[in-house]
Order: sequence, then C-alpha cells, then structure tokens
Amino acid sequence: MNAIAAAPPLVLAVDAMGGDRAPKMVIEGMNRALDSIKNVRFLVFGRADEVAPLVQGFRRLRSRVEVRHASDVIGAGERPSAALRNGRNSSMRQAIDAVAAGDAQGIVSAGNTGALMAMAKFVFKTLPGVDRPAIASVFPSLRGRTVLLDLGANVNCSAENLVQFAVMGEVFARSVLGLKTPSVGLLNVGEEDLKGHDAVKKAATFLQQSDLAIHFHGFVEGDDIAMGTVDVVVTDGFSGNIALKTAEGTARLYTHYLKRALISSPLARLGALLARPALRKMRARFDPRLYDGAMFLGLNGVCVKSHGGTDAFGFSNAIRVAAELVADGVNEDIKRDFAFLSANRETNTTLAVG
Amino acid sequence: MNAIAAAPPLVLAVDAMGGDRAPKMVIEGMNRALDSIKNVRFLVFGRADEVAPLVQGFRRLRSRVEVRHASDVIGAGERPSAALRNGRNSSMRQAIDAVAAGDAQGIVSAGNTGALMAMAKFVFKTLPGVDRPAIASVFPSLRGRTVLLDLGANVNCSAENLVQFAVMGEVFARSVLGLKTPSVGLLNVGEEDLKGHDAVKKAATFLQQSDLAIHFHGFVEGDDIAMGTVDVVVTDGFSGNIALKTAEGTARLYTHYLKRALISSPLARLGALLARPALRKMRARFDPRLYDGAMFLGLNGVCVKSHGGTDAFGFSNAIRVAAELVADGVNEDIKRDFAFLSANRETNTTLAVG
Repeated sequence: MNAIAAAPPLVLAVDAMGGDRAPKMVIEGMNRALDSIKNVRFLVFGRADEVAPLVQGFRRLRSRVEVRHASDVIGAGERPSAALRNGRNSSMRQAIDAVAAGDAQGIVSAGNTGALMAMAKFVFKTLPGVDRPAIASVFPSLRGRTVLLDLGANVNCSAENLVQFAVMGEVFARSVLGLKTPSVGLLNVGEEDLKGHDAVKKAATFLQQSDLAIHFHGFVEGDDIAMGTVDVVVTDGFSGNIALKTAEGTARLYTHYLKRALISSPLARLGALLARPALRKMRARFDPRLYDGAMFLGLNGVCVKSHGGTDAFGFSNAIRVAAELVADGVNEDIKRDFAFLSANRETNTTLAVG
Repeated sequence: MNAIAAAPPLVLAVDAMGGDRAPKMVIEGMNRALDSIKNVRFLVFGRADEVAPLVQGFRRLRSRVEVRHASDVIGAGERPSAALRNGRNSSMRQAIDAVAAGDAQGIVSAGNTGALMAMAKFVFKTLPGVDRPAIASVFPSLRGRTVLLDLGANVNCSAENLVQFAVMGEVFARSVLGLKTPSVGLLNVGEEDLKGHDAVKKAATFLQQSDLAIHFHGFVEGDDIAMGTVDVVVTDGFSGNIALKTAEGTARLYTHYLKRALISSPLARLGALLARPALRKMRARFDPRLYDGAMFLGLNGVCVKSHGGTDAFGFSNAIRVAAELVADGVNEDIKRDFAFLSANRETNTTLAVG
C-alpha cells in the first residue's frame, strides 16, 4: 500500500453547477467515479452552501473533496462571448482556472458547451501548432467503439484543420480505446478519390503521403461510424455534429418502435417479459451514459465535457475519461506529434498549396 | 370503365440494366408496381435478348411493356464524365432520351447515381431559375415520414442553393407525403440564430423574411430528422449524405444487437418467438425498400433513382414515387414557385448581398 500512497494523487477540478440536474448529480457522479478510479481527489467549484452539504452525504467522498466557493453559474443559454466577459466568478471558470494554476490536472463540466470551450480556450490556450481545438467523443460500433471528431467546435474546416484533427483523434483513441495503432478515416460522401469537397480531398492526400505514424485508412462514409470500419472518424464540426445527432435520433426512433411493438399484443408482451434480461443487456450496450465524456482536444489542459442532460452515472463516466486522459498524458503525446507534423510540413507542400 | 380508358396512360421509361440485381429485379419490380399503379405503361431499355424473355414471364406485364434494345450498360464504378461521353447507347441514357423525346413522362433507374445525374442534367437541363438539382428522398420518423435533401448531388452549397432546395423540397413533400403545407427546416448544429456557417444563416434569414408561401420552421438538428420535427429537412449534399448514411448505419447496428440479444438465451429465444409478429411489423416499418425512390429535383424531367442494391419490392416503390410525381405535376409546381422566387428576389437583397 505504501507504493500507491506515495504516487502523486490525481486531482480533477469539477464544475458542480453545470448540467440540468446539477449540483446533485455532479456530487453523486464523483462518488460513483471512486468505484473505478483509485487515488483521485476533487476540487469542486460551486455555491458552497448547496455543494458542501451534498458532499457530506457521501462518507467515502468527503475526504477526497475540497469545496471551493464560486458565486456565479453560467446559464445553459448564455452566449460564449458573454460567459467569457462576465463569468470570471462562475463555477465553470473557477474550475478551469484551478487547472491553469496547477491545483488540478483536468476539469470536468456538464455545463454550456460553447461557454466551456470559449473559456477553456482563453485560459489554456491551444497546444503548440494546433490551429483549432476539436471536440472528440466515443460511440458504440459493430466492432466495439469508434472515436468521432469534430463534434461541433468548428463549422468551417480547412484541410489543415482536418489533418490536425486526425493527429489529435489518433492520440485520443490510443488513450481512451487503449489501442496501439488505431486506424483513422476521413468522413466523406463516397470512398472514391474524386468524391467530396476540396478540404477532405487535400487532407486525404496529405495523410496518405505524410510520414506521420498514423494508420490512415482513407475515406469512410456515414455508416462506417456504426460499422466500426475505422477506430477514428475525422470530419468538420458541422458534419460531425449532424452525424452525432442523427445517430442519436435514429436510435431513439428505433427504441420507440421496439417498445411499441413489444406491447402491441398480449403475446408480444409475454415475449418481451421472457426476453427482458437479454433486451436489457442490449439497451445497456447503447446506453449513451456509457459514452459520456467528450474531450476538447488541442488545448493546453485536459477539459472534458459531460452531457448537459446526464445523470450521476453519465457524469462518473466523464470523470473516468478525464482521469484516463490525464494519466495517459494525452497532451504530451499531441505535443510530440505536432512537433513532428510541423517539421514534416516544411518538407511537404501538399497542404501549403491549399 | 370508359372514362379510365380514355385518360391518357402514364408512360415511364425504365433502365432495365441498372442495379446490382438487374435486369431480373427491374422486370419483377415493374410487375409488382402494377398492384398499386393503374393505367401505367413502361418503355424498357436494355439488352433485348435478356430483357424480353423476362417480360414474357409476367402475363399481366406483357401488354404494358415495350422493350427497346440498348446495347451498352453503365457500370457501377464508371465516372460520370466518362458515362456522359461514351454512354449514348446505354440503357440509362436511352431511357432518359425517351423522356426528352416525349415518349415517356419520367424515368426510373437503379444504376450509377453520378452517371444518372450527369446524363439527366445534360439531357433535361435544369428548370428555369434552378441553379443546381438536388437529390431528395423520404425517411421514417416518429411522426410519419420526413423528406431530406440534398442527399449528395452538391457538396458545396450557397445560401441561394439552400433556399432553392427548400422550395423544391416543399413541392416534393406536397406530392409524396400528400401534405398541403409541409413545414420546412434548415439543418444546423443548433437551433439558435448564431449557430452554423454563413450559408445556413443567410438562407434562414431569407426564408424567414420572404413572401414565399412556405411554412419555414427555422433551424433543426440531426435528431429532428428521425423525430419528424418538420416535414422537410434541407441541407447541403455533404451533410445530407452523411446524415442519410449515419442513420442507415445506426439502424443496422441496432438491428444487429437486437437479433443477437434475441438469441442470447433459451428464454430470449422463446420470447422472440412469441413477439415475432410484432417485431416483424416493426421491422417492416423501417424496411428501407419502403423508402426507395429518390428524386433528382430541379430538372426539366422526372428522374427517380432506385437504390443500387434494391430488389423488386424496392424498385416497385421507386416506380410508384415516379408515377406520383408525374401525376401530381411536381415540375409544374416547381416552375411556378421559382417564377415567384425570382420575382421576389428582385425586391429582396438579403441573398444578393451574399
């Protein structure tokens, strides 16, 4: 036990006030996270009079948490620019600042995505060579799990942005999926070289020809996300967000009609009753809470966004993602790859032409 | 019966050689289509020695079909430009030419999409005022059915293109969904005005302010396609294709795990057996063959694309779509709306600024 006690503890800053069910689900989520993460401590930011009593309710959690008072809360509908200007005393901003100050190694929030991105970018800055941060997350697939990015940080992307997303997404997949050499595909409207707009074509040419140690598969299509054709699917934030939401909507539609079918007759009801454990296992596999925890890749600080509508289980998974990314030194890996990319770029004019 | 006999018969040109299972499934599909479409005749283009015997196999079909020999077949992998240059004697091109010559009122093909679009555009030309044709089709939703366009004809779209797609998609929905005033939404990464790229923002402003008789809902997100929030979802061909394929992939993933769950234990197997009729009904609802038949909107001729991997049932649905669009005079409606749009445009500078 001495060895573990001697290891420096992982400290995560947590925004207690972000998310539809905050702060209760946040504190419960932290408590649940202790099941899977050893040696973690939390700095929790929020209204101390609300947050401290909640923490006290969990005996195991108490000794691992320091509550720091933050008077303000960023609203779900607040504009990023307004949050940046007026949100200095918010729980979200204070949690980010704690990472920048070295008090914590990563931050988790289920609050306003745009505000979180704006603040994290302002405080952390981007890593050397990264033009734009991207939002990455994990989705269920036939072969296991697929990383998709960008999920909406950048609606317009150049070929260079896409190449950078590929590099960052590959590092993310190595950490979160635990793969040594994840395969990477560029999302397009066909697999042939002549398909797509200029940015994807140029990015593909660069990834094919570069000396980057990336296993680049080529173009993939929308159905390849669920098929698991590649481990990492790279696209711009507009298409990525639409793919993410379309998949969510389709899953909801399917679930709705499955439920309806299984109550449509007495025989179907009985069948559903018998198959219930199996159906429950299937639903657990698609449980979006399992896939909670999107990382803002490319910032000089680990920032993980939990779903605004999440509960304690989902939030605990987002905490786990943050802990893994910190433990694996994801940002150190990205820095190394970008140093290589920038050295490589000088001898490669494919992108410079664009 | 005299009245019906006196009505001019609907004539559709059919490419017998397009699709993975052509020509057999095409001829079977035509035969099936007779179940739902009265008074239809077919001009069928393909290798006469293959096609004519197949037609002879269906007693009911024989008298409704004229087989016209076409020596060439456009391959699934052929480039559109090559098909346009060298495909004059192909079944696809001959079928399109028959519509241009007035021998038929619409054409249906399950062949190479790019080649079909290139040839149809070359032969038919676009309708007055239409800058670019779009591909539109119908998808299952919680509220019934949703029209989505563009599905991949245009990877880059201006605000003006999106507005034109909105006008054409609305006309398409009136015909295919049988709605009087379908609601129209623009696909975006959020519902707020500040979200998205310039083209969607400008298109939204125009659709909000214009005097077009369109029920414009505003922005919608990817999950709204399956939710049926609006009747028509408008987007560029890149995002539209990705949404379409992502939905297909998600449905496949879900089906796969449902099947696996239902054979995972003896109890689950028994349950599945009891629920089988209900599950079958549910699957029938999502059967992609039901939604077969994508229209190339904006051309001066009705051109319907059936899925390349379709079977006779799917192809018969694509034929039904073509028949409905011809019977409803969709292109006349589009012409009328575009005349209004171009008159309207002169007094509206919102788009001209872009």
